[in-house]
Amino acid sequence: MATDLSQDPTRPARSGGRAARRAARAAPPDAANRAIWPGLQGGRYKPLTETQVARIHDTALTALEEIGLADAPPSGIAAMCAAGAILQDNGRLTFPRALVEDMLARAAREITLCARDPALDLQLGPSRVHYGTAGAAVHMVDVEGRDYRESTLQDLHDAARIVDRLDNIHFLQRPMVARDLSDPRDLDLNTVYACCAGTTKHVGTSFVDPAHVPAALEMLHLIAGGEEAWRARPFVSNSNCFVVPPLRFATEACQVMAACIGGGMPVLLLSAGMAGATAPSTIAGAIAQSVAECLAGVVYVNAIAPGHPAIFGTWPFGLDLRTGAMTGGSGEQALLSAGCAQMHAFYGLPGGAAAGIADAKLPDMQAGWEQMCSNVMAGLSGLNMVYEAAGMHASLLGFCHESLILGDDVIGQALRCVRGIEVDDETLALDQMKEVCLNGPGHYLGTSQTLGRMQKDHVYPGLGNRMSPKEWEEEDKPDLIASATARKEAILSTRSAAAFDAATDRAIRERFDIRLSV
Amino acid sequence: MATDLSQDPTRPARSGGRAARRAARAAPPDAANRAIWPGLQGGRYKPLTETQVARIHDTALTALEEIGLADAPPSGIAAMCAAGAILQDNGRLTFPRALVEDMLARAAREITLCARDPALDLQLGPSRVHYGTAGAAVHMVDVEGRDYRESTLQDLHDAARIVDRLDNIHFLQRPMVARDLSDPRDLDLNTVYACCAGTTKHVGTSFVDPAHVPAALEMLHLIAGGEEAWRARPFVSNSNCFVVPPLRFATEACQVMAACIGGGMPVLLLSAGMAGATAPSTIAGAIAQSVAECLAGVVYVNAIAPGHPAIFGTWPFGLDLRTGAMTGGSGEQALLSAGCAQMHAFYGLPGGAAAGIADAKLPDMQAGWEQMCSNVMAGLSGLNMVYEAAGMHASLLGFCHESLILGDDVIGQALRCVRGIEVDDETLALDQMKEVCLNGPGHYLGTSQTLGRMQKDHVYPGLGNRMSPKEWEEEDKPDLIASATARKEAILSTRSAAAFDAATDRAIRERFDIRLSV
Repeated sequence: MATDLSQDPTRPARSGGRAARRAARAAPPDAANRAIWPGLQGGRYKPLTETQVARIHDTALTALEEIGLADAPPSGIAAMCAAGAILQDNGRLTFPRALVEDMLARAAREITLCARDPALDLQLGPSRVHYGTAGAAVHMVDVEGRDYRESTLQDLHDAARIVDRLDNIHFLQRPMVARDLSDPRDLDLNTVYACCAGTTKHVGTSFVDPAHVPAALEMLHLIAGGEEAWRARPFVSNSNCFVVPPLRFATEACQVMAACIGGGMPVLLLSAGMAGATAPSTIAGAIAQSVAECLAGVVYVNAIAPGHPAIFGTWPFGLDLRTGAMTGGSGEQALLSAGCAQMHAFYGLPGGAAAGIADAKLPDMQAGWEQMCSNVMAGLSGLNMVYEAAGMHASLLGFCHESLILGDDVIGQALRCVRGIEVDDETLALDQMKEVCLNGPGHYLGTSQTLGRMQKDHVYPGLGNRMSPKEWEEEDKPDLIASATARKEAILSTRSAAAFDAATDRAIRERFDIRLSV
Repeated sequence: MATDLSQDPTRPARSGGRAARRAARAAPPDAANRAIWPGLQGGRYKPLTETQVARIHDTALTALEEIGLADAPPSGIAAMCAAGAILQDNGRLTFPRALVEDMLARAAREITLCARDPALDLQLGPSRVHYGTAGAAVHMVDVEGRDYRESTLQDLHDAARIVDRLDNIHFLQRPMVARDLSDPRDLDLNTVYACCAGTTKHVGTSFVDPAHVPAALEMLHLIAGGEEAWRARPFVSNSNCFVVPPLRFATEACQVMAACIGGGMPVLLLSAGMAGATAPSTIAGAIAQSVAECLAGVVYVNAIAPGHPAIFGTWPFGLDLRTGAMTGGSGEQALLSAGCAQMHAFYGLPGGAAAGIADAKLPDMQAGWEQMCSNVMAGLSGLNMVYEAAGMHASLLGFCHESLILGDDVIGQALRCVRGIEVDDETLALDQMKEVCLNGPGHYLGTSQTLGRMQKDHVYPGLGNRMSPKEWEEEDKPDLIASATARKEAILSTRSAAAFDAATDRAIRERFDIRLSV
């Protein structure tokens, strides 16, 4: 046997210099020595050729010119027609190409999504990648009981607190609905509270009704320390489904959008067609339609507030055409989002799409492959905002805290891939090869380069297990999910570092009916 | 709640036209209607810039010119020096740039890896992607017992039989060692038998000793129906670790290689450095060294047999530098293999590398994310031969039949991503948008394009579960691993379709000590 194995590459090397390497592994790496960070630049993966990008763009412009969008609210019609849109006899608003080009020229390009902690601000420049949560799951996944139950406000707050502690989850967009709040106004305001009280990272949320926006802004002013402070650094954005695909404005959501823009809140222009149902079943067609819809959104936003920060949110989803049910864990989904990222780069606009969705009901092997596939492709394609990147199961119906925690490892690995391969004299290592082969020990284990780059080149998983089978047995075969549950309990047993100071909290609770006991 | 959800993209659409779609879902798709197939062209992901590729190439050439390789066997030294290599005083063979360029010009570019069933031949052209097994695991993973045990010849044969039934596993390279055979000659010959008796797909294997090669060829002649038939369509290739990195020939393996080449067997030139141990710790350095080593292999092969089919097997692996243990499930590993694929494309040579390795001990969520990350990136980068793509756990120490079966889903999804996005008038679907929005029902569920492309655009998982939580509960919450075990048992309960006819089998067993009872 030994002879055979010595010939084979697949025998792990475990010998030599272990004590020295263990010693070299000091405290956690400082910022300058990190292997990954938010905003790494992607874009080395281009699913589309330049010609294909141009054809999708052209199709979107033609759709806007010849089909247009129905159901804009009167105020939107007035603003967009003043800018050059045309209200047709069939009630649809069409958009001449020149209007779209003009509005693209006005649109905000590099934007900052602020966080309550300024160190956690997100700078959305060309192909800079950030991962976070999002969605509207209605269930919590109970991994121990292998069960689904309705999600609550406390679950949402706990998710926020967990996100706050995970380095590779860069923002919290509301991932699930507090099903224990039946009144839509209570829901909207408590959602803002539960998210912001749980994390100082950037928060995204939606509003059911434009009438809820002033109250939400009032709460945000309290949190920020006044309207001026809020407007200087708005740390919450509005996730806004401003269209009902195909090619209809969502009248009420447009009114929410206008209210948020008035309040100084960045908006995510979210077009969520289902390929095969509310969008063409083909990847190119679904992308083209969502691009058309988001271009209409760009016209809308910049007609009412030129240069207002907006994210180009082409979010096409896949369907399983055998059943008509949504599916988010497929290769088709990964291509949809990666193709969208390339369109965002073409326009030079900050953009977002969905990735990391599992169709799997539990955080099992299927969940792992589904979450990684679209997450790593989104990153490699340079998607600015990767939404729904962690914790989402059952094709977005379920959210799972353990999966969220494991998502930090998934995304850490994806980010390492986004960072890519540095090629320079030091990394090419010709001098090292000479030294090692001609004069040295015949291996690189102890070289200063190997030890010196140990932290800055390598991502080490938090819960992912790299033990040998022997070590694993000696350690009683640690279970991945049990480890995640233990981490969850450790996080939730401490006080939220994002909790408001006592005076602010009291002021908020006096003014609003907050259902969360912190 | 309803109001909130209606605004949100994340609500699955489950209504409408279900009966019609179910009816349209006919028998399995025929070949013309497949969504994925072996040999799909990758390459849309380029981890390296052209300049970086050129620098790696230049570094490799300089290493060959200035460092060279030690330990070539006398016959190899003679052949390579006759071609223009130089034996230095320190015993190392160095390679002038012109020699390398000359031999690259001679090397086989588009090669066919034959299968016993010609329909399963692999055509290795530019960036055409194929996935298969490989490795030398010494353990079987017992998923039910959460345990590791020594792997046997029967386990290997069972793996071959399973591979034979999985559409997305395109070849079987020996993934594990039959630990129940202690004699190296028995091991080598029984490995050939166990693999070939289990699958009619292309088989790869290694030989411990050059003295075993003639007997193996004799067996292959018996299987093929004579030497001529074997040489016309050699369906087994030699996975050959011809170097011991850094930059030393593996003397005995080189003699195995020469014997295989003489017998008409394609060779995989396998350079398996460990980044940080036997190769530089940096991704660029590890790639550069393995490229240098494989270029030396190209010189070697083409010096003794110009144009002999050979695979450029840059297989750098990663280490966890905290412990010095091998790790194959990392983002760094995915980048190593993707970067190698780009170098293969630069040379225009058929190439292979490792992907799909899990460090996870069991087929859990970690295994899923690890296997997908490198598999999808290998495919997108256009790697011709993705080795170790399914079933490998514990950083290559363990092989798992259930994981192999689930790997068919992982790789099916990766292949869908490799296929990418088609952009043409039909897929852009502008006419459909007009029809649906201006005159039609406002959705695409029933369009002839949606139904017509249902099979050819979409990959449906075999065991991956897309049920809603409600359906999943009604179906008693099917467990992914239990489903894989059931599939395994179903496959292994039937007779191998690859089994030899009775006369051939008798002839083999009369001539060789075959330990497998079929």
